[in-house]
Amino acid sequence: MVEQVRLRLPAFARGYHLITEHVERALPDLPEKGLLHVFIQHTSAGITINENADPSVRVDFETIMNRLVPEGLPEYTHTMEGLDDMPAHVKAALLGNSLTIPITNGRMNLGIWQGIYLCEFRNRASGRHLVLTVMS
Amino acid sequence: MVEQVRLRLPAFARGYHLITEHVERALPDLPEKGLLHVFIQHTSAGITINENADPSVRVDFETIMNRLVPEGLPEYTHTMEGLDDMPAHVKAALLGNSLTIPITNGRMNLGIWQGIYLCEFRNRASGRHLVLTVMS
Amino acid sequence: MVEQVRLRLPAFARGYHLITEHVERALPDLPEKGLLHVFIQHTSAGITINENADPSVRVDFETIMNRLVPEGLPEYTHTMEGLDDMPAHVKAALLGNSLTIPITNGRMNLGIWQGIYLCEFRNRASGRHLVLTVMS
Repeated sequence: MVEQVRLRLPAFARGYHLITEHVERALPDLPEKGLLHVFIQHTSAGITINENADPSVRVDFETIMNRLVPEGLPEYTHTMEGLDDMPAHVKAALLGNSLTIPITNGRMNLGIWQGIYLCEFRNRASGRHLVLTVMS
Repeated sequence: MVEQVRLRLPAFARGYHLITEHVERALPDLPEKGLLHVFIQHTSAGITINENADPSVRVDFETIMNRLVPEGLPEYTHTMEGLDDMPAHVKAALLGNSLTIPITNGRMNLGIWQGIYLCEFRNRASGRHLVLTVMS
Repeated sequence: MVEQVRLRLPAFARGYHLITEHVERALPDLPEKGLLHVFIQHTSAGITINENADPSVRVDFETIMNRLVPEGLPEYTHTMEGLDDMPAHVKAALLGNSLTIPITNGRMNLGIWQGIYLCEFRNRASGRHLVLTVMS
């Protein structure tokens, strides 16, 4: 069995945002056991799983990822789309564009501290598109 | 067909550890063809695939990841859970919390040099939980 | 339904290469809905999804990843296989060794700017092996 839905998220500011509930609300009824695949159809935003509790984790993600992949390095050649664009591509590749999550007893089987993050790397972006696929 | 088992690993020291055999021992009989999904239910440990031969690779992973995501940066705001905590969250996001591996002829179809690593980023952690899902 | 094929890519130079068409040509007829899993059986090359348009993005990926994981650090202990080897292992773990892509209406449902990259981290490598699995 395969079920698939497309989800357009609202526009988010640059940074890291918990979207577990956005995903849950968009899902069809889940099977007892299976896999949920979450895919983002963009190359300058990513999705990952991380701590769902203390918002300071999400603040520090922004700090550290900017430190790892700085804007404005003189070596960059892909500069036409803004200072934030090339770093956004690299951050998207480092953090990933899809998640696969086990489904158990009809629910996403996340650990107790795990939530789904949208990682918005652009200064100004419109709502991002996800494709959700349930396999059972 | 979906089969799913939960696996609690023993506690490992901070560092990178080959767990291919732990995963193999926990698996049900595998189908001829399919996918194996391995998911870690934590946000301060990761799993990845890398060289299964020379242990010096795993030593250098610890060195390089500490260099990429240092402890004790003055910019960190998420500091209540110890110096190793916030870097652990970022390393987990960079290396990933799930793997999907093809199953071929009833076995994990890893390359000859590939093994599954548990990446333990905390100084002191108890046994980590994995969810293994076989789809065919 | 599971279908699986193995694909040997041609040898590529060190760098980032669009291989979307190599993958498409190797695929069996795709189902209406499902998932495509692409797995690379190596630990010193990776695969990721990123911009398929401007080649300068792929040039800058090489620059940035070399900056993040430099060759020749005095701390490295895994040095017998050449200066490019240990950094290749870490880059492979950071960018990943597998992709899962939704299939919709009988096609890979990539975003309009998304393409599949082979990330070749070694100075001299022969053709890399992929395993493609279609689940529906």
